[in-house]
Amino acid sequence: MTTLTLPTFADVQAAAERLQGHAHKTPVITSRTVNEALGAEVFFKCENLQRMGAFKFRGAFNALARFTPEQRRAGVVAFSSGNHAQGTALAARLLGMPATIVMPHDAPTAKVQATKGYGAQVVMYDRFTEDREQIGRDLAQRHGYTLIPPYDHPDVIAGQGTAAKELFEEVGPLDAFFVPLGGGGLLSGSALATRALSPACKLYGVEPEAGNDGQQSLRSGAIVRIDTPKTIADGAQTQYLGQHTFPIIQRDVDDILTASDAELVACMAFAATRMKLVIEPTGCLGFAAARQMKAQIQGRRVGVLVSGGNVDLARFCELVGG
Amino acid sequence: MTTLTLPTFADVQAAAERLQGHAHKTPVITSRTVNEALGAEVFFKCENLQRMGAFKFRGAFNALARFTPEQRRAGVVAFSSGNHAQGTALAARLLGMPATIVMPHDAPTAKVQATKGYGAQVVMYDRFTEDREQIGRDLAQRHGYTLIPPYDHPDVIAGQGTAAKELFEEVGPLDAFFVPLGGGGLLSGSALATRALSPACKLYGVEPEAGNDGQQSLRSGAIVRIDTPKTIADGAQTQYLGQHTFPIIQRDVDDILTASDAELVACMAFAATRMKLVIEPTGCLGFAAARQMKAQIQGRRVGVLVSGGNVDLARFCELVGG
Repeated sequence: MTTLTLPTFADVQAAAERLQGHAHKTPVITSRTVNEALGAEVFFKCENLQRMGAFKFRGAFNALARFTPEQRRAGVVAFSSGNHAQGTALAARLLGMPATIVMPHDAPTAKVQATKGYGAQVVMYDRFTEDREQIGRDLAQRHGYTLIPPYDHPDVIAGQGTAAKELFEEVGPLDAFFVPLGGGGLLSGSALATRALSPACKLYGVEPEAGNDGQQSLRSGAIVRIDTPKTIADGAQTQYLGQHTFPIIQRDVDDILTASDAELVACMAFAATRMKLVIEPTGCLGFAAARQMKAQIQGRRVGVLVSGGNVDLARFCELVGG
Repeated sequence: MTTLTLPTFADVQAAAERLQGHAHKTPVITSRTVNEALGAEVFFKCENLQRMGAFKFRGAFNALARFTPEQRRAGVVAFSSGNHAQGTALAARLLGMPATIVMPHDAPTAKVQATKGYGAQVVMYDRFTEDREQIGRDLAQRHGYTLIPPYDHPDVIAGQGTAAKELFEEVGPLDAFFVPLGGGGLLSGSALATRALSPACKLYGVEPEAGNDGQQSLRSGAIVRIDTPKTIADGAQTQYLGQHTFPIIQRDVDDILTASDAELVACMAFAATRMKLVIEPTGCLGFAAARQMKAQIQGRRVGVLVSGGNVDLARFCELVGG
């Protein structure tokens, strides 16, 4: 039996120092239209405006910045449905190390192109038949790369927590906070920041309706594995929570909610029309849940984490423009 | 002969005080992708994230906030291709006065809907056959409304200048600054802020290629009138500069550049894909000109004023998604 070392808020603070000057301190955007529609004061933490278009840069950079000189020389390998790929590729370029990224063949073209654009080598696999973790481990073993998983790693979790830390430091304590949930890196990192900076805040993870393994896991008390869910939220097509993320979520998260693809599309269209923001489907999970919880958040101060904005423009228009 | 009173930077400062707590201090967004592509450090002042989606709220609110109690009781009338309409409607609602807006029948649906949504009465006219100024003057005379024109008014100019003031206060002096140009309210207001806060900065107005009356006016030394230009930049389909805006532009602006519709579409697609921002065609004029001037801005600190983001989502996708 392995003893897990779970990250703490001190690790989030250390990550924030490492990210200084490398990650954007992304804007917190408010919309009176949203506030009037929901009867609440809503603060959108816009990680779609982060470097490479998503929060994933934070965790990847924090993890890679902690490599030893030997690890840096050999380089990093990562597997990802997209944003962790770009985040790792960009962080590796900034830190001057080689990167190999294992991506599903159906990843959005924009994400594949951007990953290659950052100088990474891309290896494709079939999301529905092959095991990306095995491919990643094989590459690591064969070439001496260090494998950085997309969420189940203390340094990745600590890095992701810096977005929520910035939000609370900018707007103060909140009554409720809605955070997208795939494998739980962003949610568990956000949980560390929330419990330290706004302890009484209700914290909700939000996952796609088609893939509610997190909700099932929280309710059953053990990590539930599901088939790869078919949803437009390609950043949350994970099959199970991590060994590191689940215990933090169990301890610190109040509940896990779900949103349908139709709700995500409605939020994407609203955000583009009224807030002038391009948000990818996964990035709308928190906003969709806040709309569902309208009755519960009346008069409250509410945070919504917008996780990313990486969606092909043609795909975006196919979803919202019809 | 009437003596014109031109606004000064002191009026911009007074406007900023009036707007405090009413207008958003919009974010300044940077993109390393843009910086690498242009070889310059580019600061985007994002007025597409302003209330009602464009800088026009600033000028309208500043003008209406100066009404006497009698003027407030009777209300305001405005004519506008769209964003001044919404800005005036929203400012009137906030200040508790009635508003009547004269809009062209081909104004974007989103702008008409939003204007009505702010509680204004909308009167339609034909952009190609009717005189909106005459309609506005008639309504003013008949009902005792105060007419606030979209750009040719000292209080409107001073209000629009507050966006550039915020930009310079946030990022310091710049080497070049690109500002969209329709009737010149934004450009002349920006000129007042630029000459006060960054006097050596090269200041460029940018108008649609199809309607370069500003460029012709600056070069000929007198206001040139043209037919309503056919361009996707619906916010800059003006026919002539104002009596107040032209002398400021003559005095303070270095040159006027133009951008084609195709260049605006390319910028819209780039901004959506890489910067996650929805920008309306007019809002891309400054960005398009900065791209044209790549050779001249190497290694420089450059400001780009993004004037607005009000474009129907279907229209947006028709332009960029094909």
